[in-house]
Amino acid sequence: MRKQIDLNCDLGEGFGIYTLGEDEKIADFITSANIACGFHAGDPGVIKKTIDITGPRGINIGAHPSLPDLIGFGRRNMAVTPQEVINYLIYQIGAVKTFAEVAGFSLKHVKPHGSLYNMASTDKKLATAIVESIALIDPDLIIIAPAVSAMAEAAKEKGLSLKGEFFADRNYNEDGTLLSRRDPQAIIKDPQEVCARTLEVINSGFVKTTTGKLIPLEVETICVHGDTPKAVEFARLIKESLLENNIEVKAF
Amino acid sequence: MRKQIDLNCDLGEGFGIYTLGEDEKIADFITSANIACGFHAGDPGVIKKTIDITGPRGINIGAHPSLPDLIGFGRRNMAVTPQEVINYLIYQIGAVKTFAEVAGFSLKHVKPHGSLYNMASTDKKLATAIVESIALIDPDLIIIAPAVSAMAEAAKEKGLSLKGEFFADRNYNEDGTLLSRRDPQAIIKDPQEVCARTLEVINSGFVKTTTGKLIPLEVETICVHGDTPKAVEFARLIKESLLENNIEVKAF
Amino acid sequence: MRKQIDLNCDLGEGFGIYTLGEDEKIADFITSANIACGFHAGDPGVIKKTIDITGPRGINIGAHPSLPDLIGFGRRNMAVTPQEVINYLIYQIGAVKTFAEVAGFSLKHVKPHGSLYNMASTDKKLATAIVESIALIDPDLIIIAPAVSAMAEAAKEKGLSLKGEFFADRNYNEDGTLLSRRDPQAIIKDPQEVCARTLEVINSGFVKTTTGKLIPLEVETICVHGDTPKAVEFARLIKESLLENNIEVKAF
Amino acid sequence: MRKQIDLNCDLGEGFGIYTLGEDEKIADFITSANIACGFHAGDPGVIKKTIDITGPRGINIGAHPSLPDLIGFGRRNMAVTPQEVINYLIYQIGAVKTFAEVAGFSLKHVKPHGSLYNMASTDKKLATAIVESIALIDPDLIIIAPAVSAMAEAAKEKGLSLKGEFFADRNYNEDGTLLSRRDPQAIIKDPQEVCARTLEVINSGFVKTTTGKLIPLEVETICVHGDTPKAVEFARLIKESLLENNIEVKAF
Repeated sequence: MRKQIDLNCDLGEGFGIYTLGEDEKIADFITSANIACGFHAGDPGVIKKTIDITGPRGINIGAHPSLPDLIGFGRRNMAVTPQEVINYLIYQIGAVKTFAEVAGFSLKHVKPHGSLYNMASTDKKLATAIVESIALIDPDLIIIAPAVSAMAEAAKEKGLSLKGEFFADRNYNEDGTLLSRRDPQAIIKDPQEVCARTLEVINSGFVKTTTGKLIPLEVETICVHGDTPKAVEFARLIKESLLENNIEVKAF
Repeated sequence: MRKQIDLNCDLGEGFGIYTLGEDEKIADFITSANIACGFHAGDPGVIKKTIDITGPRGINIGAHPSLPDLIGFGRRNMAVTPQEVINYLIYQIGAVKTFAEVAGFSLKHVKPHGSLYNMASTDKKLATAIVESIALIDPDLIIIAPAVSAMAEAAKEKGLSLKGEFFADRNYNEDGTLLSRRDPQAIIKDPQEVCARTLEVINSGFVKTTTGKLIPLEVETICVHGDTPKAVEFARLIKESLLENNIEVKAF
Repeated sequence: MRKQIDLNCDLGEGFGIYTLGEDEKIADFITSANIACGFHAGDPGVIKKTIDITGPRGINIGAHPSLPDLIGFGRRNMAVTPQEVINYLIYQIGAVKTFAEVAGFSLKHVKPHGSLYNMASTDKKLATAIVESIALIDPDLIIIAPAVSAMAEAAKEKGLSLKGEFFADRNYNEDGTLLSRRDPQAIIKDPQEVCARTLEVINSGFVKTTTGKLIPLEVETICVHGDTPKAVEFARLIKESLLENNIEVKAF
Repeated sequence: MRKQIDLNCDLGEGFGIYTLGEDEKIADFITSANIACGFHAGDPGVIKKTIDITGPRGINIGAHPSLPDLIGFGRRNMAVTPQEVINYLIYQIGAVKTFAEVAGFSLKHVKPHGSLYNMASTDKKLATAIVESIALIDPDLIIIAPAVSAMAEAAKEKGLSLKGEFFADRNYNEDGTLLSRRDPQAIIKDPQEVCARTLEVINSGFVKTTTGKLIPLEVETICVHGDTPKAVEFARLIKESLLENNIEVKAF
C-alpha cells in the first residue's frame, strides 16, 4: 500500500495590519492548518480570513494555542500553572472552533505553539493540562506533537489521538528534541536536504541527528514553516518530492 | 396567572488579580448572568470561575461581549465596522460558550456590553452585525437588549428571540434610551425608588421619564448592576420586593 | 535664497516579530522620523532599534503617539476625553523621549498618529489636549500637523511651534482635509504625479483638490509614507525631484 | 544620632476601572512610592493620579517596572533576555519619569516588580541589565532591592546607589531570599509580630528566619504592602511603632 503523510503549517499568524507568511499561497501545498488563536498572533479578523482560506480547500482546520505573549510571539517560557494552561486553551480553542463551525467546518486538531509546545514536550504536568483541556472540549480532537514526548504520554493516558510530527527544516538532539533556535545548526536552509530528510524519516522511521546518530521518529505529519522567506518554495518542493517518491500527501 | 420576570446581572468583570463586584453573593439573587469575555473585562481564569459560580446554581449563562477596550472598560464608542463586530463577537461568544459546555452547561443568551450595547441600540448596521454573529453561532441564543431599539428590529428581521431589558437604577429619555452616565440624574440611588419603578414597569408596562412622561416599555428581564457599592443589597431588595408583590423571579 | 523642505516618515511601526516598511532603506532619504510609541504599533525593542537607525544619521527624532488600539493600528476613531489624551501622550512621548536620550539624542518633535491626528485636525478640545501634553513635557518640541487645522490654532494659542505638513500621495478636500481612505481617489499612486504635486505646493503654496480648485497650503514638511509597497522608491524619487529642482532637503 | 528608616510601598497598581489598595490612605504613612508603569498594572491615567497623590505629600516618586504580564500581575517568571529587560525598563521608567516631571517633581528611585525583582535577586545577567537601564536613564536614580543580592552586586559594579529593603510581613530563608508565596509561612499576618521584626532588624541588623537562625540584613527601607486587606492599618501600626521607638521615618 502507498504511504501517506500529512503536511501541516502554522497559518493565521498575522495581527491587525501585520501579515506573516503567505497563507494563501502556502495553502495550495498543505493538508492541515494550525490557526493562531490571538495569544501569540492572530486576531478575530485574521482567524476568520484564515478559515476562509483553509476550509473551502478541504484543509484540516486546527487551533494553534499559545502562552499569552503577543510581544514575544509565544516563544518565551513562562511559569504558568497547569490550571492557567487549561483555561488559556479552552478560551483559545473555543474561539477558533466557533469560527470554524460558523463557516460550516469543524475543528479537527490542536497543536500547541512555540514555548508551550516545547515546555509540554518534556513537562508532564503541562502536557497533561493541555490534553485535559482538549479532552474537555472534544475527545475526538487530534493532537499534533512529537511522537516521543510528555505530550504523547499524556495523550495516551487520556485516550486521545496524537499525530507524531517531524520538523523538516530543523535539526534534532539525540533525545528527540529540537536543537534550540539559538544553535547555529538549528535550522536547515538547503531545500534539497530538507526534502531528503523528509523522505528518509518517512521511509526509514529514523532521523540523523547533528551528532551523526540515527534516532527513531514515528512521523505522521510534516511541519512546513510558513514564516520563513522561502516558505512557499519549500512547501512546494517538499510536496513535489513526496509525490515523486510515491508518497501520498493526505490530511490525517 | 402569576407574572414572571428574569433578573440579569453582568458577572465575571474582574481581570487577572482584579475583582469587580461580589459575584458569589449577587449570584444568590439573579436568574441570568452576562459573563465578560475578555475584551472589556474577564480573562480565561475569571470566565471559568464565573461559570463555576453560575452554572451549578441554575443561572442562565450568557456572553457579554464588548468592543476591544480593556483600559476603557468597553465604555468608549469606537468606529468599528459591522464585519469587525461580527468577528469580535464570534471570538468572544465562542470562547465563553466553550467554557460553559466543558463545564456541562450550555450558553443561553448574549447581551452586548457598554458602548457596543448603546451604539447598537440606535445603529441598525451594528445591530444587524451583532444579530448575524449570534445567528451564525446558534439561532436559539436569546438576545438581551432594549425592547424598542435597532437591536430589537434586527433580531425580529433575523427571527431571533429577544428579551426586553429594564435598567432598574437608570433614568430614561422619552425615546426609550438611557440618560447618559454624565447626566447627574442618570443613576437612581434610592433603593425604594428602584424597587417601586421596577414593580411599576412590570405591572403597567410603562416607565416615567425624568421629564414626567410615561413611555411604554416591554420588559422581560431586569438589569441588576453588580459593580456598584451596594449592588448585593440592591439585588436582594429588588428580589424581595418582586416576591412580596407576587411576581415570580424566574430565568427566561 | 534656496528653498528648504523637511521630509518626514512614520518609522518603527513594527511590533514584536512583525515588521512594517523598510525603515533602514527609507532612512536614507528622510530628515524627520515619527516613531511609533507602542499604542498603535511599536514596542520597546522596536523603538530602541528605530532610534539606532535614525539618531546616528542625524534624522530628527519625533514621537508618533496614538489612541490605544493595536488591533486597529490606531485608525479607528474613539470617544476619548481630553484628559485621557493628555495622559496617553505623556506616557508615549515620555517613553520615546527617554529612548532618544539614553542613546545620546534628543526628542525634536511630535506627530499624532492616524485617527488621533485626524480627530485633532478638526476637534479643538482634542487638539488643545495634545498641545498641552506636549507643552508640559517640553515647550520646545515641534508639532507636525496640517498648517490649517484645530491643531494649528491650539499650537498658536499655546505658543508652540508647528510645521505644516503636506501628504505627497494623498488628495485633498477643499477645506484642506484629506480625502477619506475609503474614497477611491484618496491615494495617488503615480510617482510622477506625487513628485509634481510636491514641487507645486512648495513653489506655489497651493495644492489642487480633486474638484480642481487651488487651495492655499503652507508646507514645511512633506510626509513620505513608509508602509506602502513602493515606499522606498517613492521616497527616493521625491528627494531626487526636490534636489533637481534646487530645493534643499533639510531637517527643520 | 537618631536612627532613620524609609517606608516604601507599591502604589498605582490599579488599571482602567480597577483599583487595588487604598493609595490615598496609605500615602499618609509612607515616604517612598513605587509606581506601577503599565506592564503588570497601572495605565497612563492611574500613573497621573498616583503622581498627584504622592508628589505634593513629599513622598519619593519611584518607578516600579515589570515583565509584560498584565494578566499575571508580573508574578510569573518569563524567559526574557537582558536586552529585552533593558528595553522594557527604559520604556516604563521613561514614561513614569515624564509624568513626575510634568507635575513638577523628579524621579528618585526604581524598584523592579514581582518576578523581575525575584529573578534579578539571583540572576546576575538580569540584575546587570536592570542596573544598566537605570544608569542609562540617570545614574543618580536609587535602586531598591535586597542588600544581599545579584542586584546589589550589579549596582555596586556600576556605581549606582542601592537601598537595602526589608519585607516587614514576609519570612526569610537562610540565604536572605524570601519564602515563596506558596509556602504557608511566607506571609506574617500578626501586626505585632510585623512591628517587632521591623524594630529588631533596624536595631540589630539581623532577622530571624523560620529555621530560627539569625541572618544579617542591611536595611534602609521597609516595604509596606498596599494590596492586603489590612494594608492601611499595618502601615499605620508600623509607623507608630517606629516613632514610639525613637526611629525617624524619613525618605532616603
